[in-house]
Order: sequence, then C-alpha cells, then structure tokens
Amino acid sequence: MTRPKVKSGEHELLPGVKAGDRRALARAITLVESTKSEDRAEAEVLLSQLLPLSGGSVRLGISGAPGAGKSTFIEAFGKHLTGQGLKVGVLAIDPTSRRSGGSILGDKTRMEALSRDPGAFIRPSPAGITLGGVARRTREAMLVLEAAGFDVVIVETVGVGQSETEVAEMVDVFVLLLSPGGGDDLQGIKRGVMELADILLVTKADGDLEQAAGRAASDYHAAMHLMRPKYPGLTAQVLKVSAMKGTGIAEAWAAMRAFQEGLKASGSLARLRAEQARRWFWSEVQAAVADEVAEDGQAAQVEADVAAGKVLPHAAARALIRRFRHA
Amino acid sequence: MTRPKVKSGEHELLPGVKAGDRRALARAITLVESTKSEDRAEAEVLLSQLLPLSGGSVRLGISGAPGAGKSTFIEAFGKHLTGQGLKVGVLAIDPTSRRSGGSILGDKTRMEALSRDPGAFIRPSPAGITLGGVARRTREAMLVLEAAGFDVVIVETVGVGQSETEVAEMVDVFVLLLSPGGGDDLQGIKRGVMELADILLVTKADGDLEQAAGRAASDYHAAMHLMRPKYPGLTAQVLKVSAMKGTGIAEAWAAMRAFQEGLKASGSLARLRAEQARRWFWSEVQAAVADEVAEDGQAAQVEADVAAGKVLPHAAARALIRRFRHA
Repeated sequence: MTRPKVKSGEHELLPGVKAGDRRALARAITLVESTKSEDRAEAEVLLSQLLPLSGGSVRLGISGAPGAGKSTFIEAFGKHLTGQGLKVGVLAIDPTSRRSGGSILGDKTRMEALSRDPGAFIRPSPAGITLGGVARRTREAMLVLEAAGFDVVIVETVGVGQSETEVAEMVDVFVLLLSPGGGDDLQGIKRGVMELADILLVTKADGDLEQAAGRAASDYHAAMHLMRPKYPGLTAQVLKVSAMKGTGIAEAWAAMRAFQEGLKASGSLARLRAEQARRWFWSEVQAAVADEVAEDGQAAQVEADVAAGKVLPHAAARALIRRFRHA
Repeated sequence: MTRPKVKSGEHELLPGVKAGDRRALARAITLVESTKSEDRAEAEVLLSQLLPLSGGSVRLGISGAPGAGKSTFIEAFGKHLTGQGLKVGVLAIDPTSRRSGGSILGDKTRMEALSRDPGAFIRPSPAGITLGGVARRTREAMLVLEAAGFDVVIVETVGVGQSETEVAEMVDVFVLLLSPGGGDDLQGIKRGVMELADILLVTKADGDLEQAAGRAASDYHAAMHLMRPKYPGLTAQVLKVSAMKGTGIAEAWAAMRAFQEGLKASGSLARLRAEQARRWFWSEVQAAVADEVAEDGQAAQVEADVAAGKVLPHAAARALIRRFRHA
C-alpha cells in the first residue's frame, strides 16, 4: 500500500481521516480500539492531532430497550439525514459485545440500506471488558468522525447496565425510544433513564398500535412534566414516529436540531461539553486508581469484610490507601 | 464528672451508649463528628466496638423540598412511633449547615414536641466541607443510635446537591414527601429523586388542598408505574397524609414497616445493606485518592485544559496518576 504523503510529525492517517476516506476512518477507529500498548501510544498521537478538528457535529444518543424498534428507526432516520446531504456516523455502546461474535448493535445486516449509503458510516460497538473502556473508545471514535467532517454522530445503546448514563455523558441530545405497548417488555422504563431524556419518541405509531402509541405519548408527557427539566423551562418533548409509514421522522430530526441549536445559542452546549469533558477526566483518574488499588492482593478480602459488617468502611479504605501509596 | 466503670480496653462511652443514656449518645456523636485527628482515632475505637451491636433498626430516609411539610410530618410521625413505645432517632444531612449557625434541619424548635419526647433523640446535621464528609458522619451517628437500641432511625434531608442520593445509600426505605401543589415550588421533582423513592407521601391532604392532593397522588402513581421498580414486582406506593388532621400517618408507618419487613424476608435487605457498605467503602477509597490527586498543584490546570478541549481526558488522567504514584 502506498504511504500517503505526510507532513513531518503528522500521523499517516491524518489526511485520509480529514478527507473522510472510509478506509482511513476504519483503520483509525480500529487503532483507537486496540488494547495493545504500542497501538495505544500511536492512537494518542493521532487523537491529539484530531482533537483541534473535533466538536463540529450534532451528537445524538439513541437508546431503547430491545423491541422498541431502534434499528428500524435509526435506518429511517439516517436515510432522512443523508437525503438532506448530511454525513451521518453511527456508533454503538454494547458492553456485551464479544470480539468474535460482534455486537448485535451496529450489525450492518440490521440497517442494510443505511450501511450501503455513501453518506453514512456505521461501526459496531467495540468489544471491551469494562463499560468504561468501551465508552472511552466510543468517545474517541466520535472524535475521529468529527474530524472527518461528519454532520451528525449517533451513539446508540440497547441499555445494558449503565450504558445509557455513559451515552448521555458524551452527547448533546439524548433520545429515548419507547414502544407503545405499556412500557418496554411490560417491565417499565429502567429507572434513571427517563430523566436522562431530552426527547422521547414513541415508535410503531401505526396500524393496531396507533391508539396505544397516542396514549403512551400522553402518559410519558405527563410523567416528564412532574420532573424538574434538565434545562430551565425546557421540558422534554414526546413525539410519535412510524418508520413503517415514514411519519414523525422529519419532525423528530427538527426537534433534535432545534434543541441542540437552542443549547448552542444560550451557551449551554459549551457548558455541557466542558462539564462532560471534566467529568470524563475525573472518572478516568478514578478508574485508573481503582484498578491499581484493586490489584492489591488484600483488597477483595477487605471489601468482603466491609460487606459483611465486620469492619468500618472508612477505616478500611484509609488502610488500603496507605498501603497503595507506599507500595 | 465521675468516670463510669469500664472493662479494660472498652471505650468509656460504650456502657452509656448501650444503655441509651442521652448524654453519652450526644458525646459519642460529637466525638464522631469531630475533625481533629486525635478525636478521629478515638472515634474509630468506639465505632469498632459499636459496629457488632449495630444493624437492628429500621432505617428510613425522608426527603422533601422546602415547603413540602417535612418537619411537620416528622414530628407527627415521630410522635406516632414513640406512642407505640418505639425509640426514634432523627438525624439530618444538610451540607449547607455551618457550625456557628447550625442547620435548619434538626433544629429542635422545628419539632418542639418531639424534641421533648423521651423516646426520641434529635440531632442536627453535622457541619462539613464536603457532602461525603457529612454523609460519613451521619452513617456513623446512625451506628451509635443502633448500638443504643433505637428501633427506628430517620435520616432527613432537604435535597441540596446530591444529598438525596447519599441518604438513599444509607437507609432501607426511602420516603419522598411531596406537596400537593403541582410539583414542589412549581419546579417539579429534582431529576433522579423520584426514582429513588420506595414510598411517596403527598402531604397537606386536607382543607383546600385535599382535592389537589388526590390528583397529585394519582399523577405520581401513574409516573411510578411507567418505571421499572427497584425490586421486581414492588412498585413504589403513593399515599396521602395530613399532619393537621392526623390522617395517613399510621398507614404511612404501616407501609414503611411492611416494605422493610418484606425486604428482610426475601433476603433483599441483607443484600442491600451489603451493597451499600461495599459502595461506601469504594467511595471512601476514591474520595481519599481524589483529595490527594487534587492537591497536585497542576491538577486544576490540567482539568481546565481538559474542559477547554485542549487535551485528551484519558492521556491527561494517566499523566496525573503517574505523578501521583511517584510523588
């Protein structure tokens, strides 16, 4: 393979990423996802060169339980965006993905038409041991796509563990998809997720389910109104969509775009992103320390003693830190 | 003051605390709240002797925005409990309390009748610099009261910052008080709090507000039903109370008691408390490390650079940890 001409010090993938070349994008994201330490060092060189070029996309989080119709929606939504000439990236956070099997999310067969669309770039979730590790790689993949000039970057998640919280921490607008049938799987929305939402979309608002979708939309609207909004005066919107009929998609995009632009105009977007970066930084600090402390051979026993009520958490924590510091 | 007879190695306050002597309780809690290092060492000796005697009370968290009628409720509720021969402790988490002025919460003039009740023990919130520090002292004060044989320990909070989350982390049952008037202060419930609740109580269900209270109860009931419950099959209950008429108080206690006993019977209580202890332990570890890392002269600048998008959070965090480890 011919090496592209590079300026001295410039990573060899930089020109290709900036030009939006799909192969360069794939290689850059693969590099970022790699756990090998020599790859990590190289990835950080590339990322530090991409960082000044990032920040220009609308960052959307899309979450929904299995059965809420997420891939159907994202495909229709993505086609709507590319139809308007926008470049759309789709990333995924799925902590259950395994390297060999790949993730259910981001599987190109799920969103076949979109995956063949030259204006769209779909990437399966990275495999990873910890949710934090998967989240970090996804944030970095988003950086790559932004530097390539993507207009919209979607991060989707199916809602395992705390993945919605991780997604909310890296996007401008958090969209929650809900099926019309009385709560997903009749279980109800996972606690903590409803309050993350800026926009709620009731899917499958067609045919037999059209009335149920209307009622569900009213119920969610009432529930959101009981809660203090994330941004003063801006209660989360509840809309209905039908990917099958093609209704509600344009309105959903209009709502997301208006929301993000409103945040930008008020200065809230800059504040949000700065806060997200700050929190990401401290969570990285704490994850690094927790890892090292947990490697302490006695940490597991201490934790078990604390859980059994045999020792005071505060005293045990201090003893562990003292050992850690002087190790 | 005559020193009580003590067994060798036993802290001098231990017999008084075990006997429920009010002066010993007050002195023990003051010792636990002290920030002086010699007091802290002594407190940990006492606490380690009290730890095996703890765990026997029903731990209730009671939260409500200003105006929800919290002190009125706690006084009526506390009197109901002492009227049944139960010993009731009331602690508070108020991170805004200052040592000189004292806290608004736990102010004995707010709950005058209860403060004069020999079956009740009310303690204002400890002053503290960080919410974590205040929360720790409150957990330890709870230990003291449990070792003294209190049947019920209430931890109240007015909901500043993340204090509800801290309270939820140290109790068996989290009770949320709501006024009937369309959401507290017309602002709506703080996000994240509704989902913590095991029991919601709509207060002031009397006179002009009786109908509004009924409607509010229905709205909250509907909202809670949209969410997946904390414990499978156990949706949070919504009840109405009127301290003025004296209605709903006995029912509220019955609901709390039944809830906690149900958790105990299913083994969920033991699991909950073990998890709470485990999480407290790790949060102590992380707080200790975060304090030490933050003392790094460059940490503030690094954080600012991260927030401004000038440097990657992951790389910055790793550099900071390396300096911390080899300091």
